[in-house]
Amino acid sequence: MTFPVVGMVGGGQLARMTHEAGIPLGIRFKLLSDTPQDSAAQVVSDVVVGDHRDLDTLRSFARGCDVITFDHEHVPTEHLRALEADGIPVRPGPDALVHAQDKGVMRARLTALGVPAPRHRVVSDAADVAAFAAEGAEGAEGAEGSDGGGDGAGDGFPVVLKTVRGGYDGKGVWIVRGPRDPVAAEPFKAGVPVLAEEKVDFARELAANVVRSPHGQAVAYPVVESIQVDGVCDTVIAPAPGLSGEAASHAQELALRVADELGVVGHLAVELFETRDGRLLVNELAMRPHNSGHWTQDGAVTSQFANHVRAVLDLPLGDPRARAPWTVMANVLGGDFPDMYSAYLHCMARDPGLKIHMYGKDVKPGRKVGHVNVYGDDLQATRDRAAHAAGYLRGTITD
Amino acid sequence: MTFPVVGMVGGGQLARMTHEAGIPLGIRFKLLSDTPQDSAAQVVSDVVVGDHRDLDTLRSFARGCDVITFDHEHVPTEHLRALEADGIPVRPGPDALVHAQDKGVMRARLTALGVPAPRHRVVSDAADVAAFAAEGAEGAEGAEGSDGGGDGAGDGFPVVLKTVRGGYDGKGVWIVRGPRDPVAAEPFKAGVPVLAEEKVDFARELAANVVRSPHGQAVAYPVVESIQVDGVCDTVIAPAPGLSGEAASHAQELALRVADELGVVGHLAVELFETRDGRLLVNELAMRPHNSGHWTQDGAVTSQFANHVRAVLDLPLGDPRARAPWTVMANVLGGDFPDMYSAYLHCMARDPGLKIHMYGKDVKPGRKVGHVNVYGDDLQATRDRAAHAAGYLRGTITD
Repeated sequence: MTFPVVGMVGGGQLARMTHEAGIPLGIRFKLLSDTPQDSAAQVVSDVVVGDHRDLDTLRSFARGCDVITFDHEHVPTEHLRALEADGIPVRPGPDALVHAQDKGVMRARLTALGVPAPRHRVVSDAADVAAFAAEGAEGAEGAEGSDGGGDGAGDGFPVVLKTVRGGYDGKGVWIVRGPRDPVAAEPFKAGVPVLAEEKVDFARELAANVVRSPHGQAVAYPVVESIQVDGVCDTVIAPAPGLSGEAASHAQELALRVADELGVVGHLAVELFETRDGRLLVNELAMRPHNSGHWTQDGAVTSQFANHVRAVLDLPLGDPRARAPWTVMANVLGGDFPDMYSAYLHCMARDPGLKIHMYGKDVKPGRKVGHVNVYGDDLQATRDRAAHAAGYLRGTITD
Repeated sequence: MTFPVVGMVGGGQLARMTHEAGIPLGIRFKLLSDTPQDSAAQVVSDVVVGDHRDLDTLRSFARGCDVITFDHEHVPTEHLRALEADGIPVRPGPDALVHAQDKGVMRARLTALGVPAPRHRVVSDAADVAAFAAEGAEGAEGAEGSDGGGDGAGDGFPVVLKTVRGGYDGKGVWIVRGPRDPVAAEPFKAGVPVLAEEKVDFARELAANVVRSPHGQAVAYPVVESIQVDGVCDTVIAPAPGLSGEAASHAQELALRVADELGVVGHLAVELFETRDGRLLVNELAMRPHNSGHWTQDGAVTSQFANHVRAVLDLPLGDPRARAPWTVMANVLGGDFPDMYSAYLHCMARDPGLKIHMYGKDVKPGRKVGHVNVYGDDLQATRDRAAHAAGYLRGTITD
């Protein structure tokens, strides 16, 4: 057989589910994992345990791989360039991936492309934050990326501060609520660059997910609504309820354009704010399978994981369409009880159509340890089933 | 986490796909494989390489497993009893599994249960075969298992001879076409018991697949039509076209009854002959995931593999219903070209909805190396898509 070897860096649940999707494709899957106990390392045959920040480790891992791809964005950009110089296909490549690694680079590039975004600026200290807020209060003149339609009324607060690298799930994010809020000084203590953004008064969050291959084929999944709780994704509804066909097409076109302009290979998640007046602003980019695409495992003809593998191998992409009128994904967070097995059994008995996806992780309060997918013809019933199962598994619902 | 460990004996594609289905369930999967290159061993983390006919190997493998189940029927029955005596749950257990291991035992038991079957008898030599045929010619008096409705006209030939253990995919099967056919002596040369059966002049073959758990819950999949070519399964159509609801229910009830009477745990495939006058006769039993159930991976709410895992762990079973009006599975056999990758790429490009399942096996002419699933609203279009992909991958279709 001449089927290729895909090397994935990072042993989290995204790698676990990518391996699962790669099994029917007949490819070989090789994993670089921090520990032998990581979520993906539990289920993959060919695991190298090592540090993804170490170039020698990466080079050694890459030998025997036909392509390298990623479970996370934490491999240093210069290491990716070194692998490319060694002749290893890295997908997405460093020139694309840097836009998912560095929010400052991402904001600058999307602004240059004319992609609507929240008003933003790289800031260096609390005084910069105050100045950024003041500009917002004045109607946003002079701030990069403003589309002139923000609600820059009042004092320009709250302002969102984000470390440009390394944040996720609400970590590395601060909300500054006024000119004397001491939080404004917090992000600068670590000495890393910080991005200030207006806090968009959005109606809801959407995600436009696309997959692009090296030869330029691309597919767009149905646009979904993503509901966050405490900065963590809680529920994803596919398709986004009430979104007009025109707005959905606009979001898909925007994501396809970003994928093309940035030269993305693989899955690209474009997280969007839908404002109360119907505009779409780009919030974040992720260049890997993404939580907002987990519904595709049971709800789409081809999952995001299978299409990510197909893309990084430059294989033709699979049909991204939905299989059911509604699919709802709900994340399962750890609760107070470390043993989830009896709750899991109960959920299976209660709902034989429930699709549970567990990550093999130890339960810790608030930690994502799995998700459930439910599909059906009725939106509310589908949401209720997903919410019940996720709540029961977490222990916040007991009947 | 207290999620259990499932140990599977045998490293073939059924174990490969069971592991794939077990990943989202969050269970741990341990494999006993003949070699490190076996289909499943390529993708499973925890592999023991060893001989499934050796009791010490089985005992060592079973340590640390919460339950043992099987990719094939080749573990000696006495070894399974020894594992059970050690306190290891073996599912299906030896008292059930023997009916899938030994066609003589199976025929005797199903006859005792009054389940319709082809006329049959255990035979010892060519003279026995001639006597069996002669009884068929006389109208089947005295033969066990006859339902009195067979077409025992003519000289009673052809007669089918099968080794009672170890046959599969047309191996271990002989057709004796007349009283002087020298083939009648062949099966006895190996010194193993041989079963003679009337060759049923069937209209088509069906399979009624069910899954049963230790506490007695059971689910029945839609009854499928199975089309064999040269004794090997070629195509499976779900549901069986033109089968009346009454006949489908009858087949499902028959399979559920067999599962219950024999104490099967896990997936049970009941292969059936549908006679030209609409009767159903049991051909074979398999107590593991089965080729006739591969369509469930993409065509049913819960796949046979996921439900097999759930059953052997005594977890509640998942919904077995079809997700599409028609799902067609076509096996991919090896052809003359060892490199299937370019054909695979072509098939993906031609049909973005095609679901390919490759087993990681070296291509040899006639060897099952994968299968494809296609689902849709139109039966003929769905069949055509599946047949094209399977033929193109084999190399028998080139455009």
